[in-house]
Amino acid sequence: MTELAAVKAALRTQAVETPSWAYGNSGTRFKVFAQQGVPRTPREKLEDAGQVHAFTGVAPTVALHIPWDKVEDYTALAKYAEERGVRLGAINSNTFQDDDYKLGSICHPEAAVRRKAVDHLLECVDIMDATGSRDLKLWFADGTNYPGQDDIRGRQDRLAEGLAEVYERLGDGQRMLLEYKFFEPAFYTTDVPDWGTAYAHCLKLGPKAQVVVDTGHHAPGTNIEFIVATLLREGKLGGFDFNSRFYADDDLMVGAADPFQLFRIMYEVVRGGGFTSDVAFMLDQCHNIEAKIPAIIRSVMNVQEATAKALLVDRDALSVAQASGDVLAANAVLMDAYNTDVRPLLREVREEMGLDPEPLAAYARSGWAEEIVASRVGGEQAGWGA
Amino acid sequence: MTELAAVKAALRTQAVETPSWAYGNSGTRFKVFAQQGVPRTPREKLEDAGQVHAFTGVAPTVALHIPWDKVEDYTALAKYAEERGVRLGAINSNTFQDDDYKLGSICHPEAAVRRKAVDHLLECVDIMDATGSRDLKLWFADGTNYPGQDDIRGRQDRLAEGLAEVYERLGDGQRMLLEYKFFEPAFYTTDVPDWGTAYAHCLKLGPKAQVVVDTGHHAPGTNIEFIVATLLREGKLGGFDFNSRFYADDDLMVGAADPFQLFRIMYEVVRGGGFTSDVAFMLDQCHNIEAKIPAIIRSVMNVQEATAKALLVDRDALSVAQASGDVLAANAVLMDAYNTDVRPLLREVREEMGLDPEPLAAYARSGWAEEIVASRVGGEQAGWGA
Amino acid sequence: MTELAAVKAALRTQAVETPSWAYGNSGTRFKVFAQQGVPRTPREKLEDAGQVHAFTGVAPTVALHIPWDKVEDYTALAKYAEERGVRLGAINSNTFQDDDYKLGSICHPEAAVRRKAVDHLLECVDIMDATGSRDLKLWFADGTNYPGQDDIRGRQDRLAEGLAEVYERLGDGQRMLLEYKFFEPAFYTTDVPDWGTAYAHCLKLGPKAQVVVDTGHHAPGTNIEFIVATLLREGKLGGFDFNSRFYADDDLMVGAADPFQLFRIMYEVVRGGGFTSDVAFMLDQCHNIEAKIPAIIRSVMNVQEATAKALLVDRDALSVAQASGDVLAANAVLMDAYNTDVRPLLREVREEMGLDPEPLAAYARSGWAEEIVASRVGGEQAGWGA
Amino acid sequence: MTELAAVKAALRTQAVETPSWAYGNSGTRFKVFAQQGVPRTPREKLEDAGQVHAFTGVAPTVALHIPWDKVEDYTALAKYAEERGVRLGAINSNTFQDDDYKLGSICHPEAAVRRKAVDHLLECVDIMDATGSRDLKLWFADGTNYPGQDDIRGRQDRLAEGLAEVYERLGDGQRMLLEYKFFEPAFYTTDVPDWGTAYAHCLKLGPKAQVVVDTGHHAPGTNIEFIVATLLREGKLGGFDFNSRFYADDDLMVGAADPFQLFRIMYEVVRGGGFTSDVAFMLDQCHNIEAKIPAIIRSVMNVQEATAKALLVDRDALSVAQASGDVLAANAVLMDAYNTDVRPLLREVREEMGLDPEPLAAYARSGWAEEIVASRVGGEQAGWGA
Repeated sequence: MTELAAVKAALRTQAVETPSWAYGNSGTRFKVFAQQGVPRTPREKLEDAGQVHAFTGVAPTVALHIPWDKVEDYTALAKYAEERGVRLGAINSNTFQDDDYKLGSICHPEAAVRRKAVDHLLECVDIMDATGSRDLKLWFADGTNYPGQDDIRGRQDRLAEGLAEVYERLGDGQRMLLEYKFFEPAFYTTDVPDWGTAYAHCLKLGPKAQVVVDTGHHAPGTNIEFIVATLLREGKLGGFDFNSRFYADDDLMVGAADPFQLFRIMYEVVRGGGFTSDVAFMLDQCHNIEAKIPAIIRSVMNVQEATAKALLVDRDALSVAQASGDVLAANAVLMDAYNTDVRPLLREVREEMGLDPEPLAAYARSGWAEEIVASRVGGEQAGWGA
Repeated sequence: MTELAAVKAALRTQAVETPSWAYGNSGTRFKVFAQQGVPRTPREKLEDAGQVHAFTGVAPTVALHIPWDKVEDYTALAKYAEERGVRLGAINSNTFQDDDYKLGSICHPEAAVRRKAVDHLLECVDIMDATGSRDLKLWFADGTNYPGQDDIRGRQDRLAEGLAEVYERLGDGQRMLLEYKFFEPAFYTTDVPDWGTAYAHCLKLGPKAQVVVDTGHHAPGTNIEFIVATLLREGKLGGFDFNSRFYADDDLMVGAADPFQLFRIMYEVVRGGGFTSDVAFMLDQCHNIEAKIPAIIRSVMNVQEATAKALLVDRDALSVAQASGDVLAANAVLMDAYNTDVRPLLREVREEMGLDPEPLAAYARSGWAEEIVASRVGGEQAGWGA
Repeated sequence: MTELAAVKAALRTQAVETPSWAYGNSGTRFKVFAQQGVPRTPREKLEDAGQVHAFTGVAPTVALHIPWDKVEDYTALAKYAEERGVRLGAINSNTFQDDDYKLGSICHPEAAVRRKAVDHLLECVDIMDATGSRDLKLWFADGTNYPGQDDIRGRQDRLAEGLAEVYERLGDGQRMLLEYKFFEPAFYTTDVPDWGTAYAHCLKLGPKAQVVVDTGHHAPGTNIEFIVATLLREGKLGGFDFNSRFYADDDLMVGAADPFQLFRIMYEVVRGGGFTSDVAFMLDQCHNIEAKIPAIIRSVMNVQEATAKALLVDRDALSVAQASGDVLAANAVLMDAYNTDVRPLLREVREEMGLDPEPLAAYARSGWAEEIVASRVGGEQAGWGA
Repeated sequence: MTELAAVKAALRTQAVETPSWAYGNSGTRFKVFAQQGVPRTPREKLEDAGQVHAFTGVAPTVALHIPWDKVEDYTALAKYAEERGVRLGAINSNTFQDDDYKLGSICHPEAAVRRKAVDHLLECVDIMDATGSRDLKLWFADGTNYPGQDDIRGRQDRLAEGLAEVYERLGDGQRMLLEYKFFEPAFYTTDVPDWGTAYAHCLKLGPKAQVVVDTGHHAPGTNIEFIVATLLREGKLGGFDFNSRFYADDDLMVGAADPFQLFRIMYEVVRGGGFTSDVAFMLDQCHNIEAKIPAIIRSVMNVQEATAKALLVDRDALSVAQASGDVLAANAVLMDAYNTDVRPLLREVREEMGLDPEPLAAYARSGWAEEIVASRVGGEQAGWGA
């Protein structure tokens, strides 16, 4: 297989999971702007996800969020997904929207609230059993707003205790992905604020516990690719929540704010063997003002483009330049790949997969956008909290 | 008058405006946790504000937010305020919660939306005429989320045009306070992102246009007291929106995150003559998880303590040390004031004003908290958007 | 002229000024790593700059730094520059390396130090008269390290006074470019910390005073293209100091850290008419660990590539998408230009200019690097402070 | 023992190590401003450190930096220290000022350079044997400036290998303290950029490897006290390098930029048992523009004040408020301690220790400052690199 053929083969097998909630309404604390045609049910979200996969060919699974996507019969839901061309993916827990969680969930000072939170997580594993999902993705809104509000260290003890109980419940082939976040919604301390905290907990829990990197969850200036390289080296990178940001956790389309950073991240994934391992590539975005399905298609394409560039890096030439200490030559090797316009290559890959080379144009022509606006009338649109 | 007497006199005449919306529910994009006893009407907000003033003695006015505080009869509202011991303060506009404002208000690409936004601002001036308010506080959520989304420069032109129309409408003794904000809810560009932009617009508009500094609206590391000193030097500091933050626009209680910064800001106010001028001192906070009225009382007290320390700086000794280039001595003069425990002094001031020296304890004993929980049942609680 | 021809014509006339000091040694506070072949005299710097221009064709001028480039006879220096194919450019002042400047220069508490600083600036204008330079570039290291150290507002008064005296001295066709910087070497206050401060001073001084944007001199997250658009709209953008940074004022090669940001900046320049006006495009970089001449060639090429992409934006399509509020379409128009590989176009432009299409390879083949290592032996290498 | 007596007892036994290099000249990349009377030899640094301890009573040890403090006979140096009332403390390595280290030291791509770096570290352990020092403090300037420059993961492998060799060499009772730093002097990647990386390496190395927290080495907004609490919980907090910063690694006097943060850090130390354990409290500062000895005295006092406030926190009341979820009450307990003026208490403590209650005034009266200016004439002043 030629090198280019290998690159193409890798691109054909890429899988980017889309999140059910990105198809629903979202917004800021100031306002949620509703959009027409937004899904009202988990099934309608799967229909939209099916569109994204139909046009991109690389978005075969859909992450669920419990309780937003809670249904009576997960087997039926999984079957419906398959009918729409996709499969159910990671289960995302929610321990931040119940009134009991005002001061935290798994780290709450009261044992009763912690019990409730852990029970919810255990329920999520039950759902994983039903859906056949591999990953339980855990993000905790836990933290404090004011110095002194709660005991920083005590909260870590409670966190460790709760996670351990859930870890024990995991079946063979199931994983727990622990997400960290710099801040928000907690404004003074966050109980899992950085990769180090997530790593330390996962290390103690065991091999089924892995860290998930949300690209929007870091302090200003943080070198994310360094974290990716480090977690891969430690065997502790479970997956990504992709999105992009200029300021805080803006949840914009991945690749929209700093495409060079996304390329560098994907290069470390490739270099560290993450592209062919169990690392999960997921989107976690909010399309507050732009059309949702095309935004998700665009996001998937942005990941593809960054991946293609990363795969095109001449790693032999890079190693030679690095070993010789030639700073400019080594940088030039990386930049050569980045500066390449990979869109023609991806058009070829899509045609070889039997897809339209231009997913966005093809989606626009498909009439789906008009169809859902016409048909999804009445009912309550899905959204955060819906 | 001795120096201490002068400090006390200054502290007695201090006025911190509380915002009607801080008495209502608030939260993050993830969740608004409702609290018991929260006001359901503008009048109930005024009642709570009356409590804050009753116990602190230095919170005589209440800022209104339109349309959240829209009423039929502002004269009656003003009269009700007076009955509760307070007066109506600044009028705050809202051009961010209508569906039309998804892509902006006064800077929106469509003329019709801009017209609607400007009309709202003109209506706010009408309300100012009715309430006798001096200040129109303008904060725009306008901006863009993605590079290319709109024309950065064109939006400035639209902003200038809209502001000019509103400026013309201002009566004698009325002012327009233009607030800047680093980001949120816009995530790529914000149309008034920094003091420089607000200043440039206000300068062109004229003397009735002034800049307002929200202490939570800056890039990480920004030296806010420098901005305060500069705006006072330029005669363009209209007022403050006080709150505190560790990360973004966290809207925590002022003085809770960095009390030394608050002291430095108040010192520049004192040094620049801002304490005895038309600078408006307002709170703009969200008490998402803590009890609202005590949080506001505490915030007012935090401003008082910072002010007291700023007034206690030995400015003569400071000038001598500064002029001689004695870095450590000059710093020590400032720190001596900051390290002073001014709570005994403030207790005295309160007693001299006929108040309980301990506002929080006195409020707790008053029974108000229990009374509103018992009486404010049913109806819709006030909150952002309510 | 076709559109592509117009783009090429614009690229052929682009002019990027290189700084004399970038050819000398530089480093961090921890260590300056000397490099072989580094110039020892202003003439040798001009020789190196001549190489950069010879291979890129778009670096026709060289900025001088006084006193680092102080010579007896500036006419002779200008003549020597011309012999090496370049011209003398902006004069950069230095008021930060004399022992007297420990607590500032033009803002120093002592009048004698301020006098010395202003005299130096006036001397720089004398040199401009001799060199025929248009621009005096002013960057002040002035500020304080500790709260209380000096009077923030008083320093602004001194700054205004000093600048006014220098402004008066400017001849016809001469300009004063005032640079702002977020922090460093001052760690608490900086006397010109942001574009707003520079703008306010320049506005009062008059039309010959313009703001210069150093791309490394902002708070984390600052939207630089917004500032560029705003200053162009105000008629106050004097020029750029290009470099790139991940953290603070890292002074890396422009385009190395965030090439998408550089593109967005260049787009605002093009959109705002800055490309065909008096805006000066200068590099201000430190090649601490990489070979200096190739790093500067690469930097010039990076500016060219960003400019080419900016020129390729389909502005009509962009305007249509923006006016219609189609967020994704508008973003896509911008991204289409950015994702284009413009290196073939630039190779063509170079060939049409009679240059080698690959400046770095051509420079490497030229033998200049080996020549200077062999010949520049002995003497004192140029560097900051040398 | 009453509670106050316990607080006083704790304050009397506090030990803050001062760094030999803080007595020498320092500066920024722009300029080092030399000061009169600065030490020229390790012995003169010890003399100055002796003054700091003589007046504060809580600075009994001095950190050495190799090779800046390299001497023939460490036993003699230790004896000289004792004569001046102090003892030798941690040994700090230097792998950043040799020309070989341009691209790194222990992580350098070339084995020969790594060998040299590791040999230096082993030499430092030899010196520890001679001085009786417990701690080897490791800070590496290693990293890269440009994407692609070197292999991020490969550098971690080299780091691990080098550290392991040094770890093996440690004797009983000796420790390796690994310091992390966000950036500088490397501007793209840093090989130990955060606590997570330092922690992961220390964990693998074993119990003698511990993390050191430099308070100036974090991304903007990082919650340092969270890291302190976490490392104490993990048994991996080896010590502190205290200083303060507004922007980057400003190395200002500890407590000068954010005294409330320092208090919160010290509270977590107290709460986590760190105050009575093996946690090393060291200063790492640069007194670029202020007089050095008084700056260090002031810094030690600032640590004392923060410690006193932390010890005064009513932990029982805090626990009650935290357990009940009373956000405002819990915050108030912490703030009560912070708002206390502890200077009178510290004056008492000093008097009980037989010291002058006002260390700075006593030092000023002592004549030492004048003495060293008069006597330390000629020779080469100590400084970074000297």
